[in-house]
Amino acid sequence: MKTLAAQVITPEDLLKHWQGHRALTRHVIEAFPEKDFFEFSIGGMRSFSKLTDELLAIAAPALKSIVERESQPFKEGEEKLIFKAQYLQKWDESTDEINQYWEKLTIEDFNENFNLFGQYEFPIVQNILYFIDNEVHHRGQGYVYLRALGIEPPFFWER
Amino acid sequence: MKTLAAQVITPEDLLKHWQGHRALTRHVIEAFPEKDFFEFSIGGMRSFSKLTDELLAIAAPALKSIVERESQPFKEGEEKLIFKAQYLQKWDESTDEINQYWEKLTIEDFNENFNLFGQYEFPIVQNILYFIDNEVHHRGQGYVYLRALGIEPPFFWER
Repeated sequence: MKTLAAQVITPEDLLKHWQGHRALTRHVIEAFPEKDFFEFSIGGMRSFSKLTDELLAIAAPALKSIVERESQPFKEGEEKLIFKAQYLQKWDESTDEINQYWEKLTIEDFNENFNLFGQYEFPIVQNILYFIDNEVHHRGQGYVYLRALGIEPPFFWER
Repeated sequence: MKTLAAQVITPEDLLKHWQGHRALTRHVIEAFPEKDFFEFSIGGMRSFSKLTDELLAIAAPALKSIVERESQPFKEGEEKLIFKAQYLQKWDESTDEINQYWEKLTIEDFNENFNLFGQYEFPIVQNILYFIDNEVHHRGQGYVYLRALGIEPPFFWER
C-alpha cells in the first residue's frame, strides 16, 4: 500500500458522497413531468431521460466491471425504459448494486489502474470521481431544463 | 491522525482534480460571447458571469479562510467586473492563490471540522468536495447556455 500517510477521504465517505449525489439526481428525475422527462431539451441536447440512460449505464455497471476487473464496453439504454417509474426503479436497483459492489473494493484497489470500458485507463479512484463529476454535470443541465419548464429544482444540498 | 489506513486520494491528486475542473470552467468562460456572458440566461436563472461571481467568491477566499481558520461571511461580487477579460484574470489569480494556500494544508487538516462562511460546519475535505461539485453543477448549466446559443462547449474531459 503506497503513500498511506497522504490520503484524505475514506472509502465510506466517498460512497456516502456518491450516494448523496445519486439521491439528489433521483429527486431531479422525480421533479420532471412524465412527458418532459422524455421529450424536453434545449439547444439540441439530449432529454433528461437520455442523460439518465447514460448515468445508469455508468454507475453500477462500471463499478461491477471495476470490482471484477473485467473491462466491458460501454453499453447504454440496453433496456428500453418508457416510464419515469421504470427509471426510478432502475435507479434504486443501481443504488443497491453500488452498495454491494463497494463492499468488495479493498483500500488497495483505489490506486490501481483500470481500463474502464476498455477506453479510460486511470486509477480506480479517478474513475469513481469521474462518475460523480459526470453525474453532477448532467444533473446541472437537468436543473436548467426544470427552470426552463417553470419548475423549481430541488435544493443542491438536498442529498 | 485518524483512520490513516482507509483513505483513498492524496492532497496532491485532489488539488490536481480541482484545478483540472477549474481549467475546464475557464474554457467555458472563454467560449461565451462577451455580451452573452453577462446577459444570457434561461428560465430566470443567473447569467454565467453571475455564476462565475459565485465560483470566484468561493474558491480562493474559502480556501484562505480554511487555511487561516478564520470563518468569514460569504461575500460575492465585491469587485464589479465588467469585461470577460477581467473575469479570466481574476480566475488565474485565484488559481495561483489556491495553489499557494493548498501548500499550507496539512494532511491532518482535511478531516478537521471548519465552519465555512460561518454557516457550513463540515470536515474540510467535505467543504473542498463541495466547492468542486458546486462548480461542476454551475458549469453544467453554462453548457446548456452555450448550446442554446448555438455554441459547441469544450469537451468535458478537457482539463
